[in-house]
Amino acid sequence: MHSSFFSQRLTVEQVEEGDQLAPKFDADGLIACVTTDATSGEVLMLGYMNAEALEKTLQTGEAHYWSRSRQLLWHKGANSGLTQKVVELRIDDDQDAIWLRTEVSGNGASCHVGYRSCFYRHVVLEYPGTGTTAKLAFNESEKVFDPISIYGDVPNPTIL
Amino acid sequence: MHSSFFSQRLTVEQVEEGDQLAPKFDADGLIACVTTDATSGEVLMLGYMNAEALEKTLQTGEAHYWSRSRQLLWHKGANSGLTQKVVELRIDDDQDAIWLRTEVSGNGASCHVGYRSCFYRHVVLEYPGTGTTAKLAFNESEKVFDPISIYGDVPNPTIL
Repeated sequence: MHSSFFSQRLTVEQVEEGDQLAPKFDADGLIACVTTDATSGEVLMLGYMNAEALEKTLQTGEAHYWSRSRQLLWHKGANSGLTQKVVELRIDDDQDAIWLRTEVSGNGASCHVGYRSCFYRHVVLEYPGTGTTAKLAFNESEKVFDPISIYGDVPNPTIL
Repeated sequence: MHSSFFSQRLTVEQVEEGDQLAPKFDADGLIACVTTDATSGEVLMLGYMNAEALEKTLQTGEAHYWSRSRQLLWHKGANSGLTQKVVELRIDDDQDAIWLRTEVSGNGASCHVGYRSCFYRHVVLEYPGTGTTAKLAFNESEKVFDPISIYGDVPNPTIL
C-alpha cells in the first residue's frame, strides 16, 4: 500500500537526515512500534503498524496497530476503553521503527493479561552456568484490571 | 537453535504468568528488543536478537544484537566503544519482545548517524488532509560524535 501521506525512500541522506516521513515497511508490510507512557517513560508494549495503522494513528491522534494474531487493523482500546492518546510519534534513523509516546486513558493499563505494562517481568541476572535455565521475576505484583471481565471469551492473542 | 538456557513454550499460562524464560523467536530466529537509557528512560534504539545474542547479553552483561543488515552477531560498541551495560532485561507477556534497560558508556550515544538516540526526529502532528505529506522535525539538534571518525569507511547499515 502506498499513500501520498508518506514520501518515497530515495537516498540514505534523505531517510536519515531529511524532514520527510518515509517509513520502511517489512516484507509483511509492517513497522515495529515501541509504545511508552509519556509521563513515566515506562515501555508499555511493542506492537506493529501497517501503513493504514500508521496513517490512522497520525490522523486521529489515537494509537492504531496491526494485530498479527488476529490479522486486522486494531484501534487500541476500542474494546477495553484503554485508548492510547498520541503525545509524540518519533521515527528512527533508517525509518524502520517507531517510538510512540502516549497518555493511556482509564487505569493506564496496556496489557491484555491485566498488567499496566506488557513488560511486567525481568530476567534474574545470575549469569548462570551451562545447563541451568534462566528465571523470571515480576516487576508488577498486582493486575490493574480483570482481563475476563474486560475481554470475556475473546481468544487470547498469545501464540505458543 | 535451542539452548538449555531457555525453557520450552508449553502453555499460555506458563508463558504469561510463569517464571521461566521461554522466548518466542520469529521465522528468522529473531526477537525484537527495545533498548532504553536506564537513567533517563529515553528509547535509544530498536534492535533484534537471535538466541545466541540474547544468551550472550545475559551472560556478559553487555548488549549483543543480531545485525540484520550485516547478518552477524553484533556486540554493540565493540567498534565505537559505546557499549551498553545491562541494568535490567524485561520480557513481555507472550515473550516475543524484550525491553533492555542499559547504561551507555562514553558520551552515551547509541545511533550510527551520531545522535544520542536513534529516535532523533518526530512527526509534526498537523493531521494533514488528503494529498499532503507528513513532515519530520528534529528532537536532537547536534550530533554527539562524528560517525566518519568512529566508523571510517564501514558501510552505512541503512537500507533503502
